[in-house]
Amino acid sequence: MTPQPCTFCVRWQEQPEFRIAEFEQCYLVLNPDQFFSGYCFLYAKQHVAELFQLEQAARSTMMEEISRSAQALQRVFSAHKINYELLGNMVPHIHWHLVPRFTTDPLWPRPIWSEAHQELLLTPEEYRQRIAAIRQELQ
Amino acid sequence: MTPQPCTFCVRWQEQPEFRIAEFEQCYLVLNPDQFFSGYCFLYAKQHVAELFQLEQAARSTMMEEISRSAQALQRVFSAHKINYELLGNMVPHIHWHLVPRFTTDPLWPRPIWSEAHQELLLTPEEYRQRIAAIRQELQ
Repeated sequence: MTPQPCTFCVRWQEQPEFRIAEFEQCYLVLNPDQFFSGYCFLYAKQHVAELFQLEQAARSTMMEEISRSAQALQRVFSAHKINYELLGNMVPHIHWHLVPRFTTDPLWPRPIWSEAHQELLLTPEEYRQRIAAIRQELQ
Repeated sequence: MTPQPCTFCVRWQEQPEFRIAEFEQCYLVLNPDQFFSGYCFLYAKQHVAELFQLEQAARSTMMEEISRSAQALQRVFSAHKINYELLGNMVPHIHWHLVPRFTTDPLWPRPIWSEAHQELLLTPEEYRQRIAAIRQELQ
């Protein structure tokens, strides 16, 4: 049996249609499930599990990448709040769930995990438009 | 009617028995509910809602405080993974849920919010011991 590669280690190569931006420490990609409009993953280029396994300079740069991405999402989607979550229980490779939340979303104000939901997939053109809007705000 | 103060703005004063550490940017306190052993809140001294509303230096310092706290929790509780979550949908004052997770915990590997659970309160002496252990690891 060949060992499975970490899904985040191969994601940038394997899912080019969801790429948003390459930063110094992280990649920003759109979550194919857009049940929460604008839900992105910001994940480390390095395969590490915990923040304290990074060098201080890398953590600091990552923090700026998180903040910059969150601000872009807030502007594009007029979110009421951004949720930032680093879990990694299933895939221990640092990946932030950056989720714009709205007072009108079905789970508000509860965490996104508090109730199961149907995936919301978009058309390729809708994905392209959403990604283009986030990219423009990041410039 | 007197407006309610933000619960995090008054927490350090009002719940001295749960204080763990004062950092430059944040306070670290134990969550009274210890269903997840070692569950802490690390919250900003400033009343701000989003990371991008902080100055860059404050964000960078906060990141070090998150990382240092998480590492202490990992060591004290021999956690399999630390979960880091900044939500703030209900109380829009930056507070990180720092949650040691274990392969033996009832919700593993799902997020802590995926299933409701009974609060687990400890005795005053158990709280003191738990806080002392975390403080010692932070030194």
